[in-house]
Amino acid sequence: MTAQQRQMSLGAMMFFPAGGHISSWRHPETDTQGLLDFNYYKKIVQTAERGKFDMFFYADELYVWDRFESGISHANSIRPEPFILLGALAGATEHIGLAATISTTYNEPYHTARKLATLDYLSKGRAAWNIVTSRTDEEARNFGREKHLEHGTRYERAKEFVDVTQGLWDSWEDDALLLDKESGYFADKEKLHNLRHKGSHFQVHGPLNVARPPQGYPVLIQAGASEAGKELAAAKAEVVFAPISEFSAEGLRAGQQLYEDIKGRMAKYGRSRDELKILPGIMPIIGRTEEEAKERLAFTESLMPQQLGLDLLSYYLGQDISSYPLDEPLPIRPNLDEFNQSKSVLKHILELMDEEQPTLRQLYGRITNRLALAGTPEQIADFLEE
Amino acid sequence: MTAQQRQMSLGAMMFFPAGGHISSWRHPETDTQGLLDFNYYKKIVQTAERGKFDMFFYADELYVWDRFESGISHANSIRPEPFILLGALAGATEHIGLAATISTTYNEPYHTARKLATLDYLSKGRAAWNIVTSRTDEEARNFGREKHLEHGTRYERAKEFVDVTQGLWDSWEDDALLLDKESGYFADKEKLHNLRHKGSHFQVHGPLNVARPPQGYPVLIQAGASEAGKELAAAKAEVVFAPISEFSAEGLRAGQQLYEDIKGRMAKYGRSRDELKILPGIMPIIGRTEEEAKERLAFTESLMPQQLGLDLLSYYLGQDISSYPLDEPLPIRPNLDEFNQSKSVLKHILELMDEEQPTLRQLYGRITNRLALAGTPEQIADFLEE
Repeated sequence: MTAQQRQMSLGAMMFFPAGGHISSWRHPETDTQGLLDFNYYKKIVQTAERGKFDMFFYADELYVWDRFESGISHANSIRPEPFILLGALAGATEHIGLAATISTTYNEPYHTARKLATLDYLSKGRAAWNIVTSRTDEEARNFGREKHLEHGTRYERAKEFVDVTQGLWDSWEDDALLLDKESGYFADKEKLHNLRHKGSHFQVHGPLNVARPPQGYPVLIQAGASEAGKELAAAKAEVVFAPISEFSAEGLRAGQQLYEDIKGRMAKYGRSRDELKILPGIMPIIGRTEEEAKERLAFTESLMPQQLGLDLLSYYLGQDISSYPLDEPLPIRPNLDEFNQSKSVLKHILELMDEEQPTLRQLYGRITNRLALAGTPEQIADFLEE
Repeated sequence: MTAQQRQMSLGAMMFFPAGGHISSWRHPETDTQGLLDFNYYKKIVQTAERGKFDMFFYADELYVWDRFESGISHANSIRPEPFILLGALAGATEHIGLAATISTTYNEPYHTARKLATLDYLSKGRAAWNIVTSRTDEEARNFGREKHLEHGTRYERAKEFVDVTQGLWDSWEDDALLLDKESGYFADKEKLHNLRHKGSHFQVHGPLNVARPPQGYPVLIQAGASEAGKELAAAKAEVVFAPISEFSAEGLRAGQQLYEDIKGRMAKYGRSRDELKILPGIMPIIGRTEEEAKERLAFTESLMPQQLGLDLLSYYLGQDISSYPLDEPLPIRPNLDEFNQSKSVLKHILELMDEEQPTLRQLYGRITNRLALAGTPEQIADFLEE
């Protein structure tokens, strides 16, 4: 592909089943009864396909969002299992890529290799895997642990997990499947290979019981922004979801730095820069005019119940802020250096406070809209091009 | 349902993706290119649905059939992952039940509860789970172990696995999902329950991140014929696949005994006999005349390559019989009492030897056809009625 022909890749991301916002299930146009009905997903993904999107991406987590009570009461806390949904969508679409999250911390490489190989066959080469390591204790508690694995161990396991999964896809050579009725040879045993992997996290003999996927390897996606995450992306991924905060609050230059950072790490894994695409994530809010779009954004913000907003913000700040006046700026300012939860979210909140001097009510609205980009179709296209 | 209205339930079982016989992929009418293509499965399952079958049942194993080399070369050793396939089939069918195997030894209850709940929603209440504990070292070696779990431990784990899975389905009360846009209440937190299970095999906090399945519990199927298997069936299952050897070689009376045995165990679990159906498995070979059906059966037998037949029989007998003359009866007779592999298969082989005095070639043909029932449609219907 020459420079002149470069074309943007577009993914349609479903972060919550009802949309990108934690309360978008309340939007009057949302078909909430559809959240557990196949036709709802079929309509959305067929629309994305008609709109020439390259990929439908279904985010996943392995728990109900119950870190505080309002999360259960007010947030969209149900998620159909991703690969059953993608299997159903494979039969209802023809061209669009079908991607979903599988956690390397709470799964087995054999099941994972097999699921993706199967989806790749049923969709004729459209399967993709968003590799995550999970990060909450809530998820750990659904899988026999009290605490989630420590960061370094999680990524060490993730790297080995992906190696084993790729090894299983390689366990059938491209032409190992003979299906020769005349001679009675189903497979060429010389072209089937045992993996005999024995590592620190996995022991897997192989071969896989599905032949090599049509794509060879299904598309691998990575989203982690840590050092270990960027290394995994540079070593293995074909797509990286860039954290939006790198692109919005700090602007284009930070995005370009992240781009260079990840692409610069690829050479040492014997990969060319073209083998990986970086896709920044946005939540587009579209209007016929900019004003209409901004009104829609404000309306979306207003859908979040006050208690959920306060609880979310308290959670992100690491302290209870529910006693402060709602219509005044937050009178406290946590210290970023001493913070031991997600620093990137706190940094974004502090920037918002500095730039916009929002009231508490506005602030909690803005943090759940931090991927939002409100404008006309032209404005959004211009932003994406830039 | 009164006695007059009693109606047989029919399941269409796909033991290998190409059919019930280990070599049926070689049949001229088999679409071998379809084995990894959705349209192949869609056509079969839509046909079963049109034929009023109650259930499509997809058997599964977690390894390539490589206990001997001819297994790789000649047997049908690929199997698409069951639940991606059933997800796709959910969108292509309307009434038929969709069942597949999930091993309790190599899976997690949270993933399992979620997969079945999702399939139950996408299919509008048609999901079913064949509960197996797996039994081969080949499977163990794909999941970090050298040997499969000992029988008692496997069933103890299976029982706890099913308890936890049902607990997760119960973690949302029927009316816990509110989806009330006006008030902003997504769910009623009083009707969501944490499981907080801590047992010998699993620790699972819950709740599930999919609401209670349309069926309450998806249909549970069990097939084990051991004491522990029969207890699990009596305690949990709604469907039991009865091992055919109980029905054919030993006749109707043995089948009736098995029926009484399993149904008789239900009362102590507080269940009525009507809550469980027993489905004997057969492999129907249909002809316009009995002669045509018998010819088809003989043809099916002839599809198995000699080496695969000998290796299979050696495996079942626990000794290498490849040096004996093919067209004479087998000159040896293993002692059933001293045998430490599958006694039920050996018993069946010894009975065949006594009843039919087959040559070695005929014998290996017969053992892979041990579920076969060749006849006209009327003969097969009569057999099923009897």
